[in-house]
Amino acid sequence: MDRITSRENQQVKRVCKLMKSKKERTASGFFVAEGAKLCAEAAASGIAIEELYITPEALRRYGAQLEPLCQSAGVTYEITEDIAGKIADTGTPQGVYCVCSTPALTLLESNLAPGRYIALESLQDPGNIGTILRTADAFAIDGVIMTADCPEVFSPKVLRATMGSALRVPVCVTADLPALLVRLNATHTTYAAALNSGARSIRACNFSGPVVVAIGNEGGGLSQGAISACKNSVMIDMVGRAESLNAGVAAAIVMWELSRR
Amino acid sequence: MDRITSRENQQVKRVCKLMKSKKERTASGFFVAEGAKLCAEAAASGIAIEELYITPEALRRYGAQLEPLCQSAGVTYEITEDIAGKIADTGTPQGVYCVCSTPALTLLESNLAPGRYIALESLQDPGNIGTILRTADAFAIDGVIMTADCPEVFSPKVLRATMGSALRVPVCVTADLPALLVRLNATHTTYAAALNSGARSIRACNFSGPVVVAIGNEGGGLSQGAISACKNSVMIDMVGRAESLNAGVAAAIVMWELSRR
Repeated sequence: MDRITSRENQQVKRVCKLMKSKKERTASGFFVAEGAKLCAEAAASGIAIEELYITPEALRRYGAQLEPLCQSAGVTYEITEDIAGKIADTGTPQGVYCVCSTPALTLLESNLAPGRYIALESLQDPGNIGTILRTADAFAIDGVIMTADCPEVFSPKVLRATMGSALRVPVCVTADLPALLVRLNATHTTYAAALNSGARSIRACNFSGPVVVAIGNEGGGLSQGAISACKNSVMIDMVGRAESLNAGVAAAIVMWELSRR
Repeated sequence: MDRITSRENQQVKRVCKLMKSKKERTASGFFVAEGAKLCAEAAASGIAIEELYITPEALRRYGAQLEPLCQSAGVTYEITEDIAGKIADTGTPQGVYCVCSTPALTLLESNLAPGRYIALESLQDPGNIGTILRTADAFAIDGVIMTADCPEVFSPKVLRATMGSALRVPVCVTADLPALLVRLNATHTTYAAALNSGARSIRACNFSGPVVVAIGNEGGGLSQGAISACKNSVMIDMVGRAESLNAGVAAAIVMWELSRR
């Protein structure tokens, strides 16, 4: 195992770039998993792990859990606590990072098979995107459609909130959600989650066939374009005094109802 | 309107203390609402607003929205952007703060009227607590029971995530959740949200009477003591591959099912 002790090491600089830059991730086709659990999930998911970076302390603490990872990683580097801190996105790094090939979970707009999808428009909070992917995984949703301005799935904050689900849930990124929804009307029942007049209670909806439910962002909800593109509107019944739900909670209840048969 | 320009002003120091210190909030019976929306919600909820601190920029931008607040505040101080930054818990402060009396929403353990409650054990993430209070408000849950080691409701991070719901949802803080659950068995059907054998699908539960559902923390779930104290166990059906749900999502689905009639 090679040992890296310099913060200025070129490999370390590349890992830092992959952590920070969406452009770098997209251009290279690699991303960085941070932390013992996420790295172990990456190994278990069967994706190609190019490099493993680990501190002696982390090797001692998580060695058993990371055995499959150590075996599948192309190269392993021992790093110092100082370097682990430099790479980290979290305040209390565990000292384990692996550089992974981005899994081929990308769904093409032109090729969305009939299924159950949610579509997210312009969400802003990385934690919400991560939580939604984790929930989609738990309820076996066929895929998550998101507009290109949502936080990127393989950014450190989103990845962490997914707890590994980013490695399993198919995602379709779209530059024009209304146009996609209009096309999906041919094969799917489309719903806008909105409070407009005529919105049906989600408890009264029959989600047995192929279906897409579009959910808007934390502040303003769905755009008029997205609402108009959907054939139906659906609302989550609120009986109390809160004006709205957290976007991750709204998406969770939609997916929970989609998974009801 | 008095004008404060010194960061060392005693009033400003007190506001900072109320922002940072649970002890200070508990001892004084006051908390600080940050941001135009939360301050407006505080005014609308009818709680006593002792002091309002606002920058000229914020007054210009949010003045109309804050009209009722300006009228109900005991005293209003104009502050500088620099002072607003000093008080702030967020990176991009709006420049509006008010010192409020903690509302009398506290439920006493000895005095929990029959109703629908969720009980949170040792949650760690302030955002989750805030989201759960917001969801409880939306679904008209009668109260949230939480162990004393959960993040405090009137801390800046929890308050922000509640979007004002902290001013409306009754909360009972308990030092001994298992003992409280045992007592509640006399008047409520108690459920532990757990994956143990014998746990019933939440879709098969009848939540028509008084009910308490206990939910464990993000990492380890419910303690054995809390599970044993509940007469029943309930699980959220997961069909996918995620191991677990985010605690805020799990609580949301429980409350959604509790609000189903």
